[in-house]
Amino acid sequence: MNKKYVFYILGQIATAQAGLLILSVIVALIYKETAVFAFLASAAISLTIGVLLTLINRSHSKDIYAKEGFVIVALAWLVMSAIGALPFVISGDIPSYFDAFFETVSGFTTTGASILKDVESLSKSALFWRSFTHWIGGMGVLVFIVALIPNMADKSIHILRAEMPGPIVGKLVPRARDTAKILYLIYIVMTMLEMVFLLLGGMSFYDSLLHSFATAGTGGFGIKNSSVGGYSPYLQWVITIFMILFGINFNLYYLLLIKKFKAMIKSTELWCYISIVFVSVVIISLNTYPLYNTMSDTIRNASFQVSSIISTTGFSTVNFDAWPVLSKSILLILMFLGGCAGSTAGGLKISRVMLLFKIIYRELKKLLHPRNVQSISLEYKIVEETTLSAVTSYFSLYIVCIAVIFILLSLEPFDMETNFSATIACFNNVGPGFSAVGPAANFADYSNLSKVVLSFAMLLGRLEIYPMLLAIIPTVWKRKR
Amino acid sequence: MNKKYVFYILGQIATAQAGLLILSVIVALIYKETAVFAFLASAAISLTIGVLLTLINRSHSKDIYAKEGFVIVALAWLVMSAIGALPFVISGDIPSYFDAFFETVSGFTTTGASILKDVESLSKSALFWRSFTHWIGGMGVLVFIVALIPNMADKSIHILRAEMPGPIVGKLVPRARDTAKILYLIYIVMTMLEMVFLLLGGMSFYDSLLHSFATAGTGGFGIKNSSVGGYSPYLQWVITIFMILFGINFNLYYLLLIKKFKAMIKSTELWCYISIVFVSVVIISLNTYPLYNTMSDTIRNASFQVSSIISTTGFSTVNFDAWPVLSKSILLILMFLGGCAGSTAGGLKISRVMLLFKIIYRELKKLLHPRNVQSISLEYKIVEETTLSAVTSYFSLYIVCIAVIFILLSLEPFDMETNFSATIACFNNVGPGFSAVGPAANFADYSNLSKVVLSFAMLLGRLEIYPMLLAIIPTVWKRKR
Repeated sequence: MNKKYVFYILGQIATAQAGLLILSVIVALIYKETAVFAFLASAAISLTIGVLLTLINRSHSKDIYAKEGFVIVALAWLVMSAIGALPFVISGDIPSYFDAFFETVSGFTTTGASILKDVESLSKSALFWRSFTHWIGGMGVLVFIVALIPNMADKSIHILRAEMPGPIVGKLVPRARDTAKILYLIYIVMTMLEMVFLLLGGMSFYDSLLHSFATAGTGGFGIKNSSVGGYSPYLQWVITIFMILFGINFNLYYLLLIKKFKAMIKSTELWCYISIVFVSVVIISLNTYPLYNTMSDTIRNASFQVSSIISTTGFSTVNFDAWPVLSKSILLILMFLGGCAGSTAGGLKISRVMLLFKIIYRELKKLLHPRNVQSISLEYKIVEETTLSAVTSYFSLYIVCIAVIFILLSLEPFDMETNFSATIACFNNVGPGFSAVGPAANFADYSNLSKVVLSFAMLLGRLEIYPMLLAIIPTVWKRKR
Repeated sequence: MNKKYVFYILGQIATAQAGLLILSVIVALIYKETAVFAFLASAAISLTIGVLLTLINRSHSKDIYAKEGFVIVALAWLVMSAIGALPFVISGDIPSYFDAFFETVSGFTTTGASILKDVESLSKSALFWRSFTHWIGGMGVLVFIVALIPNMADKSIHILRAEMPGPIVGKLVPRARDTAKILYLIYIVMTMLEMVFLLLGGMSFYDSLLHSFATAGTGGFGIKNSSVGGYSPYLQWVITIFMILFGINFNLYYLLLIKKFKAMIKSTELWCYISIVFVSVVIISLNTYPLYNTMSDTIRNASFQVSSIISTTGFSTVNFDAWPVLSKSILLILMFLGGCAGSTAGGLKISRVMLLFKIIYRELKKLLHPRNVQSISLEYKIVEETTLSAVTSYFSLYIVCIAVIFILLSLEPFDMETNFSATIACFNNVGPGFSAVGPAANFADYSNLSKVVLSFAMLLGRLEIYPMLLAIIPTVWKRKR
């Protein structure tokens, strides 16, 4: 293990985070809030840690492998969250460090699960920081660093690969750093586009910015107690459409950018994703029609909630926990699916689910004709057998993780539906679940132990399990290459 | 598709079932019950169908493959259940055919889920038939036929393989028919052994027989409204121990029979199974201690329930739905696991879960050292890669089935906990679930549509999905070899 390099990168990350915290200082200054001192202090702490780690580990070898990639990513997310929680505690907005850590992890992992009972009581700068963590976490903390730091090793692909979601990680262009830059460019443009549409609908600049952050990262932190419920139908539709857009593979936007429109439109994952959204909206609309006055309200609420859940954003316009059980059950299944690979969404990812179905179908054919084994394609390319076995073992591990987290939560006095949906909602980075953690409730009443468990679940889910799991195995640290 | 052979075997099965129904006629005669006519009529119908199918398809080719094996098994179980439901309807014990079909499928698949609100109101012969279906279904309907009919094709291994549970199906001895005979011999001896122990504890002959049937098949139909709760602690312990024993791979009993005691005791699946039981009992005892007066009551109830659920029997001594959520959650996980492969238990099977964990562990190692891929062993033998990929695709299909059944049940007005646990309890052939389908409740209030869905779920689970799934795919029927 190249520990020096690991800690050097962590130092870079802490330094960068000090810069990000300064943005909140500016917001606090604009609104003349006392929280300015909390952000200044946090930025100072972050900078000190960052500079120290960087200096101490200056003389590192740039020789890193997959192992270092996983460990760097896991620790980076822990460090970001641990430091990111400080301003909430120092300013007194969230007095308990456990709560602040949960909220920050929920932010960076773009989960959107909250322990706040009255989100409107927070200072404007604290709310800004909270939503901003979504935006940073959405595209990836390390992708950001790779794009930013010029003198990083060529092997930074090991880091990108460990942080990027989906069964097949590809580079858009030969150099990892350029790939990271292109991704961030698309990300920034789309976020700004959403802001423009929200501003056109009469939303304030501050609200537009924070909602765009939370949509872009598919995070879902609301800044009102009623989430997005209080905004106009137009604004709700804008957010609906952008939630769907941010759940699409960013590679497709790159294809659009280089004018390969035909290749983009041919994506089977895209069509599968859109079909699932469409079918779910139709069924839920029919199922919830008796609850609302008009067809337009029904379709808007159904579309909003389906987009919010499948993209694992987690915004809500209504209390979907009060919906009929069919609609709730469909939402529960969508929580597992998640958006497309290579998007900012969580969950299993559509392309992984497609591969699982193709593997199952091939197994059925194999039972009938054992000697005639065919290869499996995705997006018109044959998928390697090692990738296929990686997909099924990932899925197995994914289910095992759910079982373990669910059992750990069962030490709480909540009912099984609450614990199960809390597990699913956090692990898939959705946010709200059902029952006592439904959209009208929150995670405040869980014990500190459970908040730590759920924080870990969110990190596991966001980083697709392996980095976090490998980072806590001692032999990974000890063993020499 | 060799349809003639398929229907010929179905004819043999219907004929054999007429013989089984005659046993209930004898019970009805002993207790001088009017149900005797219902059983006679059902036996006559079964015999007519059986003889007609056998005669029409007499001139069949014995050339069968895996495809025919799957279809025969799927249809055999459907025919057995469809005919087996008749006596309940004709006698008026269960007036609705949907209910009777559900109850019979639940019997043959050794699920033990019931639609009866007052089981004690049934005639003695109806209760006998109900518990007897467990015993027949436990070892397998086709295994029975293979053992019974002397002139079956040598290719009957295709049929055995389709019906036997677990990731690796092996023959004990070279000839399939001899394997089937040995398995039934062990099964009969163990059932009689349990009866003796129950009789020694003062249970009546009739009650001992029926409870032994239900334990042997890991079925769990009780013959009292309080299931096993009304019997003495000694009797509850006897049933506990036999539930555990019937959840063990029957190959181990064969090893015992041929005095290979060392090979038996070395089984890693056995030790894994026993460890899971032990740990679960300890945790649940600690968790439920405040509910009971003494430590002995606590440990007995915990042991009984853990054994009942992991062996997928489904008997109960207490209403475990009222237990604390930690204990309930552990029971829920045990429902997924099930007993050992090659036992009468349902669920995923311990050895399959062990393989899943080994596959996950290998994948983790592969991430760190991609070029150093090691093979996986189970019971001191290297497992083939095709078996491993079969295990992971089976697991994926298993989870997909749960999602589909769960969504289909969501058309009901029940809560998600009820629907989810009903899905899990039926699909894994356990029996009772939680909430509205808990041990103190039953499946009576589900609609006919849901009863059909759940019946299909029970058959899917008992036959490990593939046979039922392949049998309903039209191309499997149409396509010529």
